[in-house]
Amino acid sequence: MEKKEILYEGKAKKIFKTDNKDELIVYFKDDATAFDGQKRGQIENKGIINNKISNAFFEVLEKKGIKTHFIKELNKRETLVKKVDIILIEVVIRNISAGSLVKRLGIEEGIELSKPIVEFYYKNDQLGDPLINRSHIEILELADYEQLDEITVKAKKINRVLRDFSKSKGVDLVDFKLEFGITSSGEIILADEISPDTCRFWDTYTKQKLDKDRFRKDLGDVESGYIEMLQRITGKNKI
Amino acid sequence: MEKKEILYEGKAKKIFKTDNKDELIVYFKDDATAFDGQKRGQIENKGIINNKISNAFFEVLEKKGIKTHFIKELNKRETLVKKVDIILIEVVIRNISAGSLVKRLGIEEGIELSKPIVEFYYKNDQLGDPLINRSHIEILELADYEQLDEITVKAKKINRVLRDFSKSKGVDLVDFKLEFGITSSGEIILADEISPDTCRFWDTYTKQKLDKDRFRKDLGDVESGYIEMLQRITGKNKI
Ligand SMILES: Nc1ncnc2c1ncn2[C@@H]1O[C@H](COP(=O)(O)OP(=O)(O)O)[C@@H](O)[C@H]1O
Ligand SMILES: Nc1ncnc2c1ncn2[C@@H]1O[C@H](COP(=O)(O)OP(=O)(O)O)[C@@H](O)[C@H]1O
Ligand SMILES: [Mg+2]
Ligand SMILES: [Mg+2]
Repeated sequence: MEKKEILYEGKAKKIFKTDNKDELIVYFKDDATAFDGQKRGQIENKGIINNKISNAFFEVLEKKGIKTHFIKELNKRETLVKKVDIILIEVVIRNISAGSLVKRLGIEEGIELSKPIVEFYYKNDQLGDPLINRSHIEILELADYEQLDEITVKAKKINRVLRDFSKSKGVDLVDFKLEFGITSSGEIILADEISPDTCRFWDTYTKQKLDKDRFRKDLGDVESGYIEMLQRITGKNKI
Repeated sequence: MEKKEILYEGKAKKIFKTDNKDELIVYFKDDATAFDGQKRGQIENKGIINNKISNAFFEVLEKKGIKTHFIKELNKRETLVKKVDIILIEVVIRNISAGSLVKRLGIEEGIELSKPIVEFYYKNDQLGDPLINRSHIEILELADYEQLDEITVKAKKINRVLRDFSKSKGVDLVDFKLEFGITSSGEIILADEISPDTCRFWDTYTKQKLDKDRFRKDLGDVESGYIEMLQRITGKNKI
């Protein structure tokens, strides 16, 4: 497998082609952005940590029969993945109230939700990733009804697996964002990443935030939150 | 039937009790607000015009078997209605792209939608009436699943009736907001108002705006837009 030209540079990752048209290399950067890119910075070693955490989560999911883009970790910052056509819907699942939900509904942070909340956002940086509903998805032709049902079912299952796994590590999975894509053979699989950039993780006992909210809210010691999560999830704290 | 004390003063209407606990009097004001109350003003005779237009629409709907709160017009600004417990969901139906949809999805104004879009907003002035989905409605306990399905079916039927009726008057029904409520006998009926305050109406041929967008966008001659709609809908232009 040979690394070829860059295909896309995003906010947190670079994507490279390989000599296999169905496989890509994801390179994790240290760049961090928040509030639709208004806040920018770097979190030391984030790329290394997120690569490891994300792959660990993907392996947990694969073991539970959930198909992901993960093929294999190549090095500290790079992972080989299945190439997909990304569905331009960010699927957010919430177990505990936080972030934009708290503002939207005027409720307190930290409320355990009686049932997970499922939200769809239009993956579109220019528009600020707005909340959308099934009608909007239909008009934009982002996915058809069947695909959306499939994604919803998959996202809820992923939530159950990740919530239980995190819990066993003393971490509350507050909420997270997923991206799905369609493989060359037409299958919908989980893509992108699962990391402290894309999830809210709270220590179960102290409720300390172990995710990008430390960066968003200037809570300090951002890297050590990420390292703590690496340690909890993989058992290793060497990067 | 006797008018009793005021129950509530809203942005566009006052609600009075009557000697019948199941009936209220709605009084239509000339006050106009937009952008979550940031813009305020008066539109001359709006209360008189909207009272007439809204009642005409309710009568059209009743004739098609759709239950509304309308009982009878009492005078220029006042109508007797069935008292309901308002469901705190604003149901928006869109036939043509305009307003917040254009901003949210980054599409052009004036696109005929292949299917009506249905949106739910949380009726909460403090939060700026945010867009919500079924998950949010469940958590907030604004309505249960069955009620929401019933409301959605009713809203779509109302759209078909009002769109056809408007069309026959040379008016495109672009989009509109509905409020439903529950009567003392537990029935879900249409409440509030249907007027140029709560709908977008465009002249079918000139595409001229005949609704509150004239006020929102400072297009001038706001009252004459309302009077034009009164004329089209009721055949009368005397107020
Ligand atoms: N398996 C995959 N195949 C193709 N594209 C992918 C895959 N996994 C993730 N991507 C896309 O790679 C891009 C780079 O990631 P990121 O830096 O997070 O970008 P963004 O700024 O768009 O969020 C994203 O647009 C993401 O959707
Ligand atoms: N039949 C009804 N029974 C009870 N309340 C009603 C009925 N119809 C409308 N309302 C409520 O009357 C209030 C007054 O109307 P309005 O001035 O539009 O208020 P707002 O500023 O809340 O939009 C609204 O809150 C509306 O939901
Ligand atoms: Mg991303
Ligand atoms: Mg109102």
